[in-house]
Amino acid sequence: MAQEDVFKKLVAHCKEYGFVFQSSEIYDGLGAVYDYGQNGVELKNNIKKYWWDSMVLLHENVVGIDSAIFMHPTIWKASGHVDAFNDPLIDNKDSKKRYRADVLIEEQLAKYEDKIEKEVEKAKKRFGESFDEKQFKETNGRVLEYQAKWDELQGRFVKALNDSNLEELKQIIIDQEIVCPISGTRNWTDVRQFNLMFSTEMGSTADGALKIYLRPETAQGIFVNYLNVQKTGRMKIPFGIAQIGKAFRNEIVARQFIFRMREFEQMELQFFVRPGSELEWFQKWKQTRMAWHQALGFGQENYRFHEHDKLAHYANAAVDVEYRFPFGFKEVEGIHSRTDFDLSQHQQYSGKKITYFDPELNESYVPFVVETSIGVDRMFLQIMAASYAEEEMTSEDGKKDIRVVLRIPAPLAPVKLAVLPLMKKDGLAEKAREIIDDLKFDFNCQYDEKDSIGKRYRRQDAIGTPFCVTVDHVTLEDGTVTIRYRDTMLQDRVKISDLKSIISGEVSMKKLFAKL
Amino acid sequence: MAQEDVFKKLVAHCKEYGFVFQSSEIYDGLGAVYDYGQNGVELKNNIKKYWWDSMVLLHENVVGIDSAIFMHPTIWKASGHVDAFNDPLIDNKDSKKRYRADVLIEEQLAKYEDKIEKEVEKAKKRFGESFDEKQFKETNGRVLEYQAKWDELQGRFVKALNDSNLEELKQIIIDQEIVCPISGTRNWTDVRQFNLMFSTEMGSTADGALKIYLRPETAQGIFVNYLNVQKTGRMKIPFGIAQIGKAFRNEIVARQFIFRMREFEQMELQFFVRPGSELEWFQKWKQTRMAWHQALGFGQENYRFHEHDKLAHYANAAVDVEYRFPFGFKEVEGIHSRTDFDLSQHQQYSGKKITYFDPELNESYVPFVVETSIGVDRMFLQIMAASYAEEEMTSEDGKKDIRVVLRIPAPLAPVKLAVLPLMKKDGLAEKAREIIDDLKFDFNCQYDEKDSIGKRYRRQDAIGTPFCVTVDHVTLEDGTVTIRYRDTMLQDRVKISDLKSIISGEVSMKKLFAKL
Repeated sequence: MAQEDVFKKLVAHCKEYGFVFQSSEIYDGLGAVYDYGQNGVELKNNIKKYWWDSMVLLHENVVGIDSAIFMHPTIWKASGHVDAFNDPLIDNKDSKKRYRADVLIEEQLAKYEDKIEKEVEKAKKRFGESFDEKQFKETNGRVLEYQAKWDELQGRFVKALNDSNLEELKQIIIDQEIVCPISGTRNWTDVRQFNLMFSTEMGSTADGALKIYLRPETAQGIFVNYLNVQKTGRMKIPFGIAQIGKAFRNEIVARQFIFRMREFEQMELQFFVRPGSELEWFQKWKQTRMAWHQALGFGQENYRFHEHDKLAHYANAAVDVEYRFPFGFKEVEGIHSRTDFDLSQHQQYSGKKITYFDPELNESYVPFVVETSIGVDRMFLQIMAASYAEEEMTSEDGKKDIRVVLRIPAPLAPVKLAVLPLMKKDGLAEKAREIIDDLKFDFNCQYDEKDSIGKRYRRQDAIGTPFCVTVDHVTLEDGTVTIRYRDTMLQDRVKISDLKSIISGEVSMKKLFAKL
Repeated sequence: MAQEDVFKKLVAHCKEYGFVFQSSEIYDGLGAVYDYGQNGVELKNNIKKYWWDSMVLLHENVVGIDSAIFMHPTIWKASGHVDAFNDPLIDNKDSKKRYRADVLIEEQLAKYEDKIEKEVEKAKKRFGESFDEKQFKETNGRVLEYQAKWDELQGRFVKALNDSNLEELKQIIIDQEIVCPISGTRNWTDVRQFNLMFSTEMGSTADGALKIYLRPETAQGIFVNYLNVQKTGRMKIPFGIAQIGKAFRNEIVARQFIFRMREFEQMELQFFVRPGSELEWFQKWKQTRMAWHQALGFGQENYRFHEHDKLAHYANAAVDVEYRFPFGFKEVEGIHSRTDFDLSQHQQYSGKKITYFDPELNESYVPFVVETSIGVDRMFLQIMAASYAEEEMTSEDGKKDIRVVLRIPAPLAPVKLAVLPLMKKDGLAEKAREIIDDLKFDFNCQYDEKDSIGKRYRRQDAIGTPFCVTVDHVTLEDGTVTIRYRDTMLQDRVKISDLKSIISGEVSMKKLFAKL
């Protein structure tokens, strides 16, 4: 199955099984905003718990906070967001449509890449097994021509972005003869900067209201609370502050389902260290975070580090953890050595001294910061993409069938256990509910009595439930049930009294922590 | 200690021990917005878990969702918030200060109440034990005069509010000769309506952006997802949808610390029932929710129901659960029978059919809704207020001392266990950390080696840690430690290997659920 089809199926599955709904769907939706349904919210909460506990419970020197979305507007001046958190936009005068100038140019670059790819594919077919792709690319006339165009365009583009040269961005669009996909014309306005922060007005006084922003990242909420947490928590460097919370970005081009949303949730750790030790800690967190991802068991080959060539102004090292999505390797987490940039900026803008007295060095300094930053929604999509499988099966009567199963790691699965009476009558329904009543304090359980057992198994497979328990007439006689495992589809006959310990061992977060 | 002093101490304690910080404090704060510190976030998360699990785990027919803060703007037209979610504001022309007209009038009513109260207090002193308050109020001339004034004002005020008569509100302020507390003058502007929703603009197209609102309640996010959840979750009426999430209200008069904030968090259940059965379910949820509060063990006498005299336009029954705060009995939760108002409105505005086919009745209808709505922050304040205690103690050498202790129910306590080596040397520190390493996957543990054991106990008392474990030289010999209980301050000598089960039993949510 083509990877785009996999992605489309995944999106449809998310809706059909109550994981993700488009926001305000009955009102025809709201762009790039999504709601989590009854199964989605459980998976999302479990992802957050896995992250939170791995930070706060497992590290003696990491504590959490929960800062508000609303913050004093000067914070965003100090952080650089008011002045520099912009997208360059351009309008086509005929279609009246607005585009990101940088995206138009990136798409032009992609066209050259496609052309090269097509030449390669053609040649591959022609030469068969003896084809040497590297050699072909270095010698074929057409490929070299496209590559030269690509190189020139990429060079101009990177320079224009680095210089924030809006005139040059427009000139590139004109020189490349890029047309509006709607009107087909090259009748463009100038390029203007557009700030990505949502703003609103707080309070109401006769003098007017205060213009504030919805935070575009949770990190600053940690930095401005650094002093309070360090002092009241008696924290000693090195230590970290973890936070999970919503952030908002007015993206013009929001793409790929919940991969890039206007309202999203972040899980960020800011780890405060002695100046000079930051790159050592950067390496340490890089490994720690990769281990956290790989503990989910989706295959080491599907993860890689992507080192940044160009660093943000505040960073002296940066790397992404990338996962192989159906649409290619994409960032799921960023790890950044942010130096003392943020704390120093807040020190300057607030006029408050933000330093740490280091008793071992007997000196005060502004701490350096190593950040790990991951999107909850993107992590959610990663787990859904990695878990989704369609398996061909042959039933007992020889019919071919497809089983759709979500191989979500058991500790993250929305429902842990489904209890299914073979039939409603003969007291089987009552017995099933009795089992649930005994286990519901420990796990998210689901009761289902409708349709054949086979259909019910499939429904549970489709939402990733690791265990199904069937109650039949033998249950009433000897107190045993059939337990069926999602991944292997194997079945065991076990005592009801053993269920709790069988399931506990598999669904506990400790199972994941043990791999860290 | 006076109740106001208790409240002041509580606010100071919240900051000093890392529970609640003012938002953007280093920038001199942001009005009516607060951040949760390292202990606050743990307590807050535990409160959310207690609520969520009591809804979703314990009820087979309740599922959760997590809908976005951003929603289609027509939703707020349908719900009535665009037109009617207003406060009446008035400016004093001399001080340029803005007030809520209704609050100015309420304060005037409170003045009459104070005057009556003073007369009663005077008489009480004069007559001593023989004083009959009821008789006095019915016969004393001054009291009757003030009561008559109160009755007249209250009558005009309620009528003006019911009629949304802004001219009459202004006339009341003029007739009552209410002055601005800053300028002391009666130079007032007209009263105008001010909408409490925060608005922002989404997207950016050549035609302009879409004006959207930050949701002022989470309830509507449930209503607009009703169809999706009912269908994909195959839910049968009666069933409920639970949600925890942020909401925002641009309050002009924000008061009492985190009791009323501009950014706050709600925990709401919308329970969908057959028309005609809603009042029965209203009674059931009233009892269920009161049991949830009382399971915390803060004394039944500190809770009461407050039935609403005047019902909102969408409700046919409404009651508050009130708790006795240091500033009086105040609402912590509201339970409302919202009829079919919301679903019918969304049906009308969206043009989508929002009905349920009831197989038992063999007919379709718009379900009725019973709502339970509680503020996380207010619940947090309630628990802090109820837990905070100052106890007089006499130490072994006869000195008097005050112990500040938070008697937070163990399942909600931020830190469950502190492990304290008697001294750092002789391997005691290592042994303490070994104990933590064994327990940290199960509980939030804290290590503390600084200061005397007595001081360390007090620090843990102040953040509500239910168990302290002390590691001494005997520990190294026989593998036992001293466990000290927060509430009784009693100490036992127990085996390290027994710690997990001793603590588990006390800190599990099941301990609270068992009382429901």
